[in-house]
Amino acid sequence: MGKTRFQIAISLDGYMAGPRQSEENPLGVGGMRLHQWVFALEAWRRNQGMAGGVVNASTPVVEEAQANVGAVVMGRNMFGGGPGPWGQNPWRGWWGDTPPFHAPVFVVTHYPREPLEMAGGTTFHFVTDGADSALRQAKRAAGGTDVLIAGGADVLRQCLAAGAVEEFDLHITPVLLGAGERLFEGVGELELEQVRAVDAPGVTHIKYRVVG
Amino acid sequence: MGKTRFQIAISLDGYMAGPRQSEENPLGVGGMRLHQWVFALEAWRRNQGMAGGVVNASTPVVEEAQANVGAVVMGRNMFGGGPGPWGQNPWRGWWGDTPPFHAPVFVVTHYPREPLEMAGGTTFHFVTDGADSALRQAKRAAGGTDVLIAGGADVLRQCLAAGAVEEFDLHITPVLLGAGERLFEGVGELELEQVRAVDAPGVTHIKYRVVG
Repeated sequence: MGKTRFQIAISLDGYMAGPRQSEENPLGVGGMRLHQWVFALEAWRRNQGMAGGVVNASTPVVEEAQANVGAVVMGRNMFGGGPGPWGQNPWRGWWGDTPPFHAPVFVVTHYPREPLEMAGGTTFHFVTDGADSALRQAKRAAGGTDVLIAGGADVLRQCLAAGAVEEFDLHITPVLLGAGERLFEGVGELELEQVRAVDAPGVTHIKYRVVG
Repeated sequence: MGKTRFQIAISLDGYMAGPRQSEENPLGVGGMRLHQWVFALEAWRRNQGMAGGVVNASTPVVEEAQANVGAVVMGRNMFGGGPGPWGQNPWRGWWGDTPPFHAPVFVVTHYPREPLEMAGGTTFHFVTDGADSALRQAKRAAGGTDVLIAGGADVLRQCLAAGAVEEFDLHITPVLLGAGERLFEGVGELELEQVRAVDAPGVTHIKYRVVG
């Protein structure tokens, strides 16, 4: 049976993005620092269609997170294209013609739009009746494989609060942002279990299971 | 040369104590859950003068944190005894006749009091001119060994904000408290480096060095 899960890099003070997020700077001030460890990784670069990169203790963690994903859920802000109805808006996501998802992606938005088929197995489906509907459709599409909640913050928190997340991997970085968007704000009571922790260069990966 | 350092258990959402802290419940609602992993440890129990307990991956972390401590700094709330002048207040701390510090302890308080010599090498000194004065006195007392900042939250944050902390160990627990007292609130900009992470039962220990 597939799992519903996410992975995310956070600062040591609990932020998944810095302050003053905008269309031009969706990670907010300083937010890029949370992802330095991944940009250099061969495993991540390969998934983005790029050559080169390093292999280290983060490699199996990133490979595991990328494997066995049958469908993806994301919010409108993460997909991009600005606010408002799609109309003639031609936005096709941040990821070029061959997005790194290689699976159906369910985008939670207020505005309907026809499915958008990209190269490499990614099709964006636009869901207008909420994150739980997107999750249900993603589970159906994933069959026995995993559903990955890609973000952003709103969708992650909604799914956590709804008890829909079964497992998550935090990439805890040695960064203090001081302000921004917190991952666990208002998610309510969740009983967690630590599955494993991995010491890697410039980051600690901790996997948790939601047990109640 | 000795280091100025601290160690502390925190929740996954960044709290070092739960909400509604009081004289009767200094850890706040749910705060005791942050310390479950340590109570069972032989290394911790031995330091408190208790027999029994388990040995696991946390053992070397706790032994290292307890070793080479030449002096301790703590706040009045952590020492206890309620607010106000000492006067005839006979409070001698939470730790019985033989406190587990075995070193001079500098207590930051608004109210003067004569030093209090306990069994086992602990003497409480009461410092009325602030945390930085307590740190200076502790460094002098420690000679070439380490100064441990024991807490609570106020003193830790003051020392972090003043740039006085050189190293710290976070014990990250699989607990969401949702509210309470945050460790990193208002400590300003600190450049950190991850020294090492340890995967242990029910907790991940991460050591950081302050590099700027």
